[in-house]
Amino acid sequence: MDWIYILDIVGVFAFATSGVLTALDNKFDLVGSAVVGFITALGGGTLRDVMIGKTPVAWMYDVNYLWTILAALILSYLFGKRISKFRRSLFVFDTIGIGIFTIMGLQRTLNVGLDPIIALIMGVTTAVFGGVLRDLLTAEIPLIFRKEIYALACVAGGTVFLLLRYFNANMDVATVVSMVTVFIIRYLAIRYNWSVQLPMRR
Amino acid sequence: MDWIYILDIVGVFAFATSGVLTALDNKFDLVGSAVVGFITALGGGTLRDVMIGKTPVAWMYDVNYLWTILAALILSYLFGKRISKFRRSLFVFDTIGIGIFTIMGLQRTLNVGLDPIIALIMGVTTAVFGGVLRDLLTAEIPLIFRKEIYALACVAGGTVFLLLRYFNANMDVATVVSMVTVFIIRYLAIRYNWSVQLPMRR
Amino acid sequence: MDWIYILDIVGVFAFATSGVLTALDNKFDLVGSAVVGFITALGGGTLRDVMIGKTPVAWMYDVNYLWTILAALILSYLFGKRISKFRRSLFVFDTIGIGIFTIMGLQRTLNVGLDPIIALIMGVTTAVFGGVLRDLLTAEIPLIFRKEIYALACVAGGTVFLLLRYFNANMDVATVVSMVTVFIIRYLAIRYNWSVQLPMRR
Repeated sequence: MDWIYILDIVGVFAFATSGVLTALDNKFDLVGSAVVGFITALGGGTLRDVMIGKTPVAWMYDVNYLWTILAALILSYLFGKRISKFRRSLFVFDTIGIGIFTIMGLQRTLNVGLDPIIALIMGVTTAVFGGVLRDLLTAEIPLIFRKEIYALACVAGGTVFLLLRYFNANMDVATVVSMVTVFIIRYLAIRYNWSVQLPMRR
Repeated sequence: MDWIYILDIVGVFAFATSGVLTALDNKFDLVGSAVVGFITALGGGTLRDVMIGKTPVAWMYDVNYLWTILAALILSYLFGKRISKFRRSLFVFDTIGIGIFTIMGLQRTLNVGLDPIIALIMGVTTAVFGGVLRDLLTAEIPLIFRKEIYALACVAGGTVFLLLRYFNANMDVATVVSMVTVFIIRYLAIRYNWSVQLPMRR
Repeated sequence: MDWIYILDIVGVFAFATSGVLTALDNKFDLVGSAVVGFITALGGGTLRDVMIGKTPVAWMYDVNYLWTILAALILSYLFGKRISKFRRSLFVFDTIGIGIFTIMGLQRTLNVGLDPIIALIMGVTTAVFGGVLRDLLTAEIPLIFRKEIYALACVAGGTVFLLLRYFNANMDVATVVSMVTVFIIRYLAIRYNWSVQLPMRR
């Protein structure tokens, strides 16, 4: 049980919590909230595994993911209101999540023997599609399409990872530096309200 | 051609009919209604097979599923209005459908060598995701997330099946008892308007 | 690099452009527009490959698809407004796209050893599901379900292809004739405002 695995579980917890809270905001029942939490946490990785042909998908081999999601469900129900006060902590966990999901998705794709550019796309897919599915299920226009430098932070982190590995950096170092990259970009983007809504000539 | 296969076809017919009727309510054309009927009937099983890696997916090996959906499409067009009078019968068929889909999805997942808990999740996925996709395609918040003890009836039925099999019950007996469990829970839930909308402290 | 490959790239370009323009109409940002363009262009083929078990999916082996989509993204941003003037040309490209996607999806499915009827369904899926996903992501009721003889043109083209191949027609001839079939039906459908909204007895 290494530190990457722990960060992965932290990310799953943060994503599941975000899914459950969104579901509760939309008055979903217990089952609906569980489903949305599950899909938010594991939907991106599932989509990746299905597309690169690594099936049965990863979470089917490790029930710890299920317990983590169950914990997120129970805690959200019990402390729903008060969790709002911890939005800042949630943001930290969530950003750890997109960082680690990007690197893990990227590596898993490289392991199948696919190109780095494809691995980068699959890394970002792992990180962001859970949230896209959450928004689709709750009938909102996916948030990511309108706000925040969310996916671009993942692209930057993934690129840093690929470059460091290309120059033979140690795996742990590459992972940490990439995650810090994701974190800083996302933090700055929110802090200074960055956006990539370019002025368009229409 | 055993009785499980016949029940499976009955379930596909009921699900396809529900999809086509929902599509017609939303003024979809012939093609749209066919697509929604198809996805409602076979979407859950397709998602399961893709995730557990049993591809090409099951319905590609048996054209009877296609004829069954075609029959549901034609009958819904011809007798659309009058079918409403048979809502009670449709409910029976539909519940047979979720029962048999749960058991079949569960078994197919066990056959791949995955854990019973994963098999249970895949059984419920088989039973309910066709309906979720139907609602997404017609731009409604998925019904299952807001009403009825639908998925929980599947969870109960699947659990009963696993327990009976664990204690070496005959396959046919386990299947019948599980389906009856699904049926009774769903019937009682609708009859007495059960819900799992827990009071939440927010 | 044969002519079918070139037509395929033309189709991807047309689909990606349609996706990006729809995204921009909905005020999506750069990332969102890129994602919607990508999914519109490659979503149908991805769904097909995942269902028939040909994974990693096709586009992962050819980065030219990615460059094509990038080109569509840049051109749509630069010339968004003026592209409207070329709607007629876009229609031509788009129809080339659905024609070639139908035939390619059909053949890829036959190559896996599946039935012609399944191959036909997968051909149409390849052609139309990119558009369905585009509409879902932008929270519109999928256009195809309400308008135009879009899918039926693909069904007709695919059927012509299967018949010609059954009677040993040359592959190039079969492909051209099928594509012309798709084109003519779609052109006539739009020209004369055909629809398959049957009068229904409800």
